[in-house]
Amino acid sequence: MSGSVYGKSFVISTWGESHGKAIGVVVDGCPAGLALTEEMIQEYLDRRKPGQTKFSTPRKELDRLEILSGVFEGRTTGTAISMVVYNENHRPYDYSIIAQFYRPGHADYTYDQKYGFRDYRGGGRSSGRETTGRVAAGAIAAAILKELGISIYSYTKSIGPISIDYEKCQKEFIKNSPLNMPDPEASQKAEAYIQEQMDNQNSVGGIIECVVSGMPAGIGQPVFDKLDAALAKAVMSIGAIKGVEIGDGFAAALNTGSQNNDSFFYDGEKVTKLSNHAGGILGGISDGSDIIIRAAVKPTASIARPQRTINKKNENIVVEVQGRHDPIIVPRAVVVVEAMVAITLVDYLFQGMTSRMDKIREFYRR
Amino acid sequence: MSGSVYGKSFVISTWGESHGKAIGVVVDGCPAGLALTEEMIQEYLDRRKPGQTKFSTPRKELDRLEILSGVFEGRTTGTAISMVVYNENHRPYDYSIIAQFYRPGHADYTYDQKYGFRDYRGGGRSSGRETTGRVAAGAIAAAILKELGISIYSYTKSIGPISIDYEKCQKEFIKNSPLNMPDPEASQKAEAYIQEQMDNQNSVGGIIECVVSGMPAGIGQPVFDKLDAALAKAVMSIGAIKGVEIGDGFAAALNTGSQNNDSFFYDGEKVTKLSNHAGGILGGISDGSDIIIRAAVKPTASIARPQRTINKKNENIVVEVQGRHDPIIVPRAVVVVEAMVAITLVDYLFQGMTSRMDKIREFYRR
Amino acid sequence: MSGSVYGKSFVISTWGESHGKAIGVVVDGCPAGLALTEEMIQEYLDRRKPGQTKFSTPRKELDRLEILSGVFEGRTTGTAISMVVYNENHRPYDYSIIAQFYRPGHADYTYDQKYGFRDYRGGGRSSGRETTGRVAAGAIAAAILKELGISIYSYTKSIGPISIDYEKCQKEFIKNSPLNMPDPEASQKAEAYIQEQMDNQNSVGGIIECVVSGMPAGIGQPVFDKLDAALAKAVMSIGAIKGVEIGDGFAAALNTGSQNNDSFFYDGEKVTKLSNHAGGILGGISDGSDIIIRAAVKPTASIARPQRTINKKNENIVVEVQGRHDPIIVPRAVVVVEAMVAITLVDYLFQGMTSRMDKIREFYRR
Amino acid sequence: MSGSVYGKSFVISTWGESHGKAIGVVVDGCPAGLALTEEMIQEYLDRRKPGQTKFSTPRKELDRLEILSGVFEGRTTGTAISMVVYNENHRPYDYSIIAQFYRPGHADYTYDQKYGFRDYRGGGRSSGRETTGRVAAGAIAAAILKELGISIYSYTKSIGPISIDYEKCQKEFIKNSPLNMPDPEASQKAEAYIQEQMDNQNSVGGIIECVVSGMPAGIGQPVFDKLDAALAKAVMSIGAIKGVEIGDGFAAALNTGSQNNDSFFYDGEKVTKLSNHAGGILGGISDGSDIIIRAAVKPTASIARPQRTINKKNENIVVEVQGRHDPIIVPRAVVVVEAMVAITLVDYLFQGMTSRMDKIREFYRR
Repeated sequence: MSGSVYGKSFVISTWGESHGKAIGVVVDGCPAGLALTEEMIQEYLDRRKPGQTKFSTPRKELDRLEILSGVFEGRTTGTAISMVVYNENHRPYDYSIIAQFYRPGHADYTYDQKYGFRDYRGGGRSSGRETTGRVAAGAIAAAILKELGISIYSYTKSIGPISIDYEKCQKEFIKNSPLNMPDPEASQKAEAYIQEQMDNQNSVGGIIECVVSGMPAGIGQPVFDKLDAALAKAVMSIGAIKGVEIGDGFAAALNTGSQNNDSFFYDGEKVTKLSNHAGGILGGISDGSDIIIRAAVKPTASIARPQRTINKKNENIVVEVQGRHDPIIVPRAVVVVEAMVAITLVDYLFQGMTSRMDKIREFYRR
Repeated sequence: MSGSVYGKSFVISTWGESHGKAIGVVVDGCPAGLALTEEMIQEYLDRRKPGQTKFSTPRKELDRLEILSGVFEGRTTGTAISMVVYNENHRPYDYSIIAQFYRPGHADYTYDQKYGFRDYRGGGRSSGRETTGRVAAGAIAAAILKELGISIYSYTKSIGPISIDYEKCQKEFIKNSPLNMPDPEASQKAEAYIQEQMDNQNSVGGIIECVVSGMPAGIGQPVFDKLDAALAKAVMSIGAIKGVEIGDGFAAALNTGSQNNDSFFYDGEKVTKLSNHAGGILGGISDGSDIIIRAAVKPTASIARPQRTINKKNENIVVEVQGRHDPIIVPRAVVVVEAMVAITLVDYLFQGMTSRMDKIREFYRR
Repeated sequence: MSGSVYGKSFVISTWGESHGKAIGVVVDGCPAGLALTEEMIQEYLDRRKPGQTKFSTPRKELDRLEILSGVFEGRTTGTAISMVVYNENHRPYDYSIIAQFYRPGHADYTYDQKYGFRDYRGGGRSSGRETTGRVAAGAIAAAILKELGISIYSYTKSIGPISIDYEKCQKEFIKNSPLNMPDPEASQKAEAYIQEQMDNQNSVGGIIECVVSGMPAGIGQPVFDKLDAALAKAVMSIGAIKGVEIGDGFAAALNTGSQNNDSFFYDGEKVTKLSNHAGGILGGISDGSDIIIRAAVKPTASIARPQRTINKKNENIVVEVQGRHDPIIVPRAVVVVEAMVAITLVDYLFQGMTSRMDKIREFYRR
Repeated sequence: MSGSVYGKSFVISTWGESHGKAIGVVVDGCPAGLALTEEMIQEYLDRRKPGQTKFSTPRKELDRLEILSGVFEGRTTGTAISMVVYNENHRPYDYSIIAQFYRPGHADYTYDQKYGFRDYRGGGRSSGRETTGRVAAGAIAAAILKELGISIYSYTKSIGPISIDYEKCQKEFIKNSPLNMPDPEASQKAEAYIQEQMDNQNSVGGIIECVVSGMPAGIGQPVFDKLDAALAKAVMSIGAIKGVEIGDGFAAALNTGSQNNDSFFYDGEKVTKLSNHAGGILGGISDGSDIIIRAAVKPTASIARPQRTINKKNENIVVEVQGRHDPIIVPRAVVVVEAMVAITLVDYLFQGMTSRMDKIREFYRR
């Protein structure tokens, strides 16, 4: 069964393995007339590029993106947009060892169980490199959102036990933080914490937060296609993510109704709310306030320490996974979460155009 | 855009408003030959019935389910199964007042924004009563899972600040707890806590946990249709749920790789894991161990206290929402979470039959 | 696998067997604010009602439709619309005989092959009665089309060898023809032809034509979701239909390019074409001229003559299928074709709203 | 809205324009373990290659296909298969003239109406070159069918008024016929006929027939996802196709029930039918006999003769479309029809695995 196709109105199909020839995505359903260049996409891809700091793998992935279809004279034509990134030549790492056993915390075992065998080179399709296609498609979605006055701000909220302090955050500092943390103090502490774990041949996790501003009210469908449900799937589908929250999320379970309910308020110009515990979504439909999503990222599964596991012959063994890996995924995953949120919002904004007969009538001007 | 249809292979379409004529669901894609009776469905519906304890609304909803199609001589025929529950006559509550303003924490405002007007009687389609169709479909899914040796155990994990203690849990006690809490001590404490909040005209939230046993390894698709992503959407689509976790969930973000990785182990008979922080899913595919999902439920939005809000004329007002409502949704939502998990698992088990050419060849015996 | 759900934006799920308790449909994705009454639906259902002429089965099916959800104060709410028709008590026909063998031309054999057993009463789910749900949903689609200035005119084009003469057609005569043939002379000849075949215990087929006026240009997607492809599936999915054509259809295969190409022409007010061999669709997208579809209907499979077949024990036998059946399906199928065309057009008009960035921007007014 | 994605279980996404950088397809849902090489795909692509006879455009399209993902060590991995064909450098044809007016019979006008502008180079996305992706995906589908013992035989049934005579057909002659006609005499006559029309600066149409052997009974779903309905959409979605028939098709409309019904017959070893007017499908489900599909192809729209049309300023003009084009599409479209049929059958065979509870139980061996 297919699992690499996402969306209803704005549909993306990603493909490619970590160590295959190339990796890419087809975006179908992008409206015509959107200004689009390879540079616009590249800017997003560069945000997930490894080797930029000491906290990400020193592997060099140039990730030079090429648009192969769907754009003519600088604008989208309305037809399928194909984008590709050719994989650079990898050093001749000997994957034949990794092929024989199942790394703890990885998808080696489950892929073998599902498919009978697997492309074991660098994790194949289950590699984080798979997200390249998501980010490329997300860049297009972000461009569409921008045209509709909607913006997304994403960042590392916490790393291990170190969380940002909202009071101390400087939105623009994020570019200076190797961890994408907008609070300079927390960023520094988190760097020290990661270094400590790296010295222990260990890895760490963290939390990513994403805030959407300018979202119109009325987007999302009742029942199964609630906007928060769609966002939960979108974000949870990213490898290594183990939890998703909207608004107060799990903290809401601890509160009482009087603490959790947001009062509506008319400020003389527009309807707003006196608080936003709901995270911008009520009954699965956007209420016009900021949409707030959080995602829990598990610590990187690849660690150099000896670990117990089994090999393909079902023998219990102890392994040391070689190769250099990110001690933390969080900073590089920030743009992936943002991409999935953007893609989902565009899909839902498009779906939202058919809610009312009067607006449809007006659209077709009769 | 449609939002009441769910699933790819096992597809359900729910319909109905809180105070409309009836409420129901069509299940399409159920295989032929499954023994199915109205009693089997009724058993599940009874688990979400209100008025059973002092912690749920004293409204009487008999919820007598009728199967209208798709079953012949006690077995499913493979064609669409239509199920209906007629709504009882409601007391002549005057909803014209509620129609004029937007209740905090409810979907009144967002429905009006989306659709231009709304069925304001009892929340209409955004009412918790909408879940009747989900539970009826979930009962069928559960019957299919049972035939495949898969079982689901769901319960209230916490209410407000009171959590169960796994050591003290008695699986079968759940039926004696008015809160569906398997830990007798926690259940009693939680009852007192809820009573306290009720006395304050307030409401509380909590966490539901769901454990799936007997799931075969290899179920789930890579990339977007990961099993955990699907479960996240399924569960987050239930009204009042604000967060979803798999395995250790948000706690994983605090751990290190060496703490979080689960070692595979061969016990002489089968492959197992020495721990289950992953919650039974690796790379979006089931690994054969228990699948563990948690959902955060917000406190009931309907509280009797005066609250600030606006009316349809955008005037800032203070309202007291009348009527008796559940001070807590959690216990009644347990079976809804279970239903959504069951439906999703069946859909994915069916999708999982086409992963390998050798098994397809064998299926068609050529 | 599910097969009773249709559409992407405007989604219908039908259910029900010929001799089950009831038959119905859920329409999800209907925009809010459409005026809708049970009478509007009933009017369409009455067009497929049997027992109206000597050419249709004298079985009485009252087909009284009830709307159970999705409509409030006379308007659609935007949420799922459930509609049901309860089946009348059938005379105690003994279906146990029919259960034992496979009627030629019917789905008895294929259902048994697919599902292992079947609801043999009156054909079960494969009965023409299944189309009730399609027609009810089609009535809603037709109401939407009307609001957008689009109308559909459908009629019997031919019965056996007798075709209408377009020169002699009187659009309004269709209501006086028991065969839904707009040419009085052809209608009379066809009546005689059918009578002749009835006397021979035989049945006849024919062709239905459907003309859509007022369709805006630009509807339909490239490649797989071409408008003509969607219409072909929609119409071919009706039982007994064996061929579908757009515009000149199979006749186009006999023509040359100079005969078949339609020249565009500007008449001073709007773009039109000097001919319409294409049937209103070019490259899978509507061109603004009339859309023309034709469907070939096979002769009714149920005939009283002795026929060779096999029984469930694989014995070669001769059977005489009892019961009174329509000697021709065509006249009653006219409204079914119309319904499927209407549903498909609405789905495509909705999908067509996201083709251009400028129009989306304007829709969200930013 | 997306239109370049096809299928439910076996999903393909095609992309690319006639004169863009490349053209390709992503196949998602192909089972793991299928032996697959670029040569297997190339063989199919070569069947639609132009420039092979005097009846197809002398343009050279090398169409060298490359597999970029989803295949490892010669076998499919179960993940998305990306295939690409880079477009050769086109001669510097001046498309700026064609950009200014709407060619009769082409999609120029409808694309402009839909999208506001178009990639006018060689028809862009509406070019027949779009079918490259379909054929590449079809080659994979055909390999799967082969493993299940199912074969497809496709050929030109007629060109203009010249039809094959089934009595005189030689299955293997098809490779010697420049028109893919298996009847040597008809092929020769048709060649002369086409030459005559070419001399008149005209083009011709024809009919393609496709016969599927070895299809198991029980494939197809009731109601909307009937196998014939799916095939109708699949085939009608190919550019230039204006009609689709199953079995006797439109001829069935002329017949009586006694002529049209196929008697089942047990030959001592298996169930068969004494005739196959139904074309192998009853009630939308395969009956085990040959599936027969026919498609009407319109004459090539591009002809050198002067034709009336309008330009972008709505001026009525006379144009002569330059460039060399195929005087007939039929022979090259044969493999495209075959590809769409193969893709659809695979999708339906996969969907067909979940019809019966007993078979699902057996599959999961519990």
